[in-house]
Amino acid sequence: MPSFRPVRGMRDFLPEEAELMKYIEEKARRIAQLHGYREIITPVLESYKLLAAKSGEEIRSRMYVFRDLGKRKVALRPEFTASVARLVADVFRTEPKPLRLFCLGSLYRYDEPQHGRYREFWQSNYELIGSNTPEADAEILMLTNKLMKDVGMENFIFKIGHVGVLRSILNQEGIPDEAQNKAMHLMDKKDYKNALMLIKEGGASQKCLDTLEGLVKIRGEEPFKVSRIMEKQVEGYEKATDATRNLDEILELVLQTEEGININIEAGFARGLEYYTGIIFEVYVPQLEIALGGGGRYDKLIELFGGESTPAVGVAHGLDRIMLAMEEQKTALKKKEERMVAVIPIEDHLKREAFRISKMLREADIPARVEIMGRKLTNALQDADKRKTDYAIILGERELKDGSVVVRDFRKRRQKTVQIDNVIEEIRT
Amino acid sequence: MPSFRPVRGMRDFLPEEAELMKYIEEKARRIAQLHGYREIITPVLESYKLLAAKSGEEIRSRMYVFRDLGKRKVALRPEFTASVARLVADVFRTEPKPLRLFCLGSLYRYDEPQHGRYREFWQSNYELIGSNTPEADAEILMLTNKLMKDVGMENFIFKIGHVGVLRSILNQEGIPDEAQNKAMHLMDKKDYKNALMLIKEGGASQKCLDTLEGLVKIRGEEPFKVSRIMEKQVEGYEKATDATRNLDEILELVLQTEEGININIEAGFARGLEYYTGIIFEVYVPQLEIALGGGGRYDKLIELFGGESTPAVGVAHGLDRIMLAMEEQKTALKKKEERMVAVIPIEDHLKREAFRISKMLREADIPARVEIMGRKLTNALQDADKRKTDYAIILGERELKDGSVVVRDFRKRRQKTVQIDNVIEEIRT
Repeated sequence: MPSFRPVRGMRDFLPEEAELMKYIEEKARRIAQLHGYREIITPVLESYKLLAAKSGEEIRSRMYVFRDLGKRKVALRPEFTASVARLVADVFRTEPKPLRLFCLGSLYRYDEPQHGRYREFWQSNYELIGSNTPEADAEILMLTNKLMKDVGMENFIFKIGHVGVLRSILNQEGIPDEAQNKAMHLMDKKDYKNALMLIKEGGASQKCLDTLEGLVKIRGEEPFKVSRIMEKQVEGYEKATDATRNLDEILELVLQTEEGININIEAGFARGLEYYTGIIFEVYVPQLEIALGGGGRYDKLIELFGGESTPAVGVAHGLDRIMLAMEEQKTALKKKEERMVAVIPIEDHLKREAFRISKMLREADIPARVEIMGRKLTNALQDADKRKTDYAIILGERELKDGSVVVRDFRKRRQKTVQIDNVIEEIRT
Repeated sequence: MPSFRPVRGMRDFLPEEAELMKYIEEKARRIAQLHGYREIITPVLESYKLLAAKSGEEIRSRMYVFRDLGKRKVALRPEFTASVARLVADVFRTEPKPLRLFCLGSLYRYDEPQHGRYREFWQSNYELIGSNTPEADAEILMLTNKLMKDVGMENFIFKIGHVGVLRSILNQEGIPDEAQNKAMHLMDKKDYKNALMLIKEGGASQKCLDTLEGLVKIRGEEPFKVSRIMEKQVEGYEKATDATRNLDEILELVLQTEEGININIEAGFARGLEYYTGIIFEVYVPQLEIALGGGGRYDKLIELFGGESTPAVGVAHGLDRIMLAMEEQKTALKKKEERMVAVIPIEDHLKREAFRISKMLREADIPARVEIMGRKLTNALQDADKRKTDYAIILGERELKDGSVVVRDFRKRRQKTVQIDNVIEEIRT
């Protein structure tokens, strides 16, 4: 029989990769706890109707959709926000706000596989629900900054825009929602020409077109300077002016708290998801073209899932992308060092003692592999040496009669006889 | 719009439940590390062909199967073993044995939902590949015992059988594999009458039928006594006798290492999966009818996935079932206690300082929620009091001028003014 392979777009994480993924997961979880976000676990499989409700045509067309054996139309989740919104609209409806919620898990999109992009991917997702203050937006940005720093990312930069600025102008011009969504989608692809064409067809004034044409060119790494230029550019559009001030307030909080944070404002930045209403952002490293994470404010989403009108802001981090970035940046892991012990009985009838000593080590939180191949000492030691092993505990009849064993230190290349009662101390020091 | 619900058979884990699940996951992962098992992550979505290869009709008919957008016939994994076997037969082919592998994640079966049984469920899965010794089987049993103890399970009992005993008799009688599988399946359902009928039709001798009829009645909680009765019962079936001795050897290792372990031998026990060849076991608590975990030896599986003939033994633990059992047994979690701090600025313009102090706390690994609702002090304090909050740090202009803040202790119901530099010490002690 030929060997099997993973389905196209899927992949396995072998031990070293899995260890790195779990390391990043733990950092992401710890950051959630440190900011007061409570974890929830939602199903991978949701109703198609829920996931399609507000995800936008582009994601909808790339979902894994099928019917279960009960003929229900279901899909693998392409993002967390719909599931979280479902809970906020239902079981969390009466909980006091703000709600800080965290989820972590795998997501599925039928994208064309490419460097760093798989059809099964992993995210940590933070949602801050119930607040419309700039503090809330700032918190979401800053926890992203902390995650990047805590996993050891270097030279990362935030790309920041504000959908509220663009939407306010289009609203004031009376452009219908559908045309707005299409235009935002084109802008997301940096196809400003067709976006403006569409807006023109929607009945926009020449002033509007001029404003937008100027706006999408505004970008730069001096946040306040750029936001002042934006404010000037949108003169006459009152709510757009408010939006640039909102951006200013958020930036102020972030820049005053996070020294050295790199921010690149792009006034024409529009993220793929249709549901954003305020600030939007993504975070990049120079080594990767794809974003390591992104989020923004979505004040009108919860009500679309049957909840009360509720402001909200959130972010998702691509854990497998962060993993890739760490590999590219050759980031050193700050792990606690752990010693692995191989426990080897010289003779077959001593294997019970080998099990007992292994158990003793594990009860003391020391990892131990007991010899289970029935090999001779030399072979077992060779095998232990090839794997990551720090000590071997060798059990011989003569030593056991004295209540002792031989402890071999693989790093120091030496061994000595140790009383069983002192083995744990010997290995720990 | 009406509110959405999870798809039938799926469920959400709300914060308290999710915390418990993650607690169990961490125990399962730590036990893997302590026994030298390396974690791998395999995709939720696999080719149907892989998953159907050796899973048995019963599981096959309850898989979530569909075609992806590229027309590939795929399915959600109903178990981990096929994915692990795929890796062992392919990327791990040349790695030195034994291989100790661990995976943890969600699985999918379209079963009828019932108490403790969902269509999305969670397992920790351990596979020990490359050894046919009783030590290997004993290790898998004992790590299961350790997980049960480490999560605080009480009165759990191992139900143990040995497929090798039954299969050896049927092989010696020349019963075809297909009839054997069907008979084992009926035995698994405790339908011994039809199982024996099928074996009779397969051409078994009267001695065989008598032997089996006696065998399936043998059970009891004194392992060695029961295994001796089994050995006597299978007299004349040489390989079946070897199998009972293999069972004896495993039991000896387990019983001599794990004091007080509860074991119930059932000679007629046959687990649903067709691929078992040796010892099989499940673990139960009195409060639940369904098993918390189960596993066994499968020496012929790896070659079916294109690998070399490789002995193997493994176990899967139902994490959500363990969770349910912990709830039923009212198990207390042994968690590290953590203090949550609410950081509240009295005046709006002090929110930057609130962010800075929150950041300082988190850098010291202390969880902090910063006020992001723009509420007045009284409201913010009331909210903090309703949630799990240990301290509030209150920022007033007057105190800040002296470089200090007010720290309120919610448990002791008192507050005092503390220098900012001393806040962390104040909260930690």
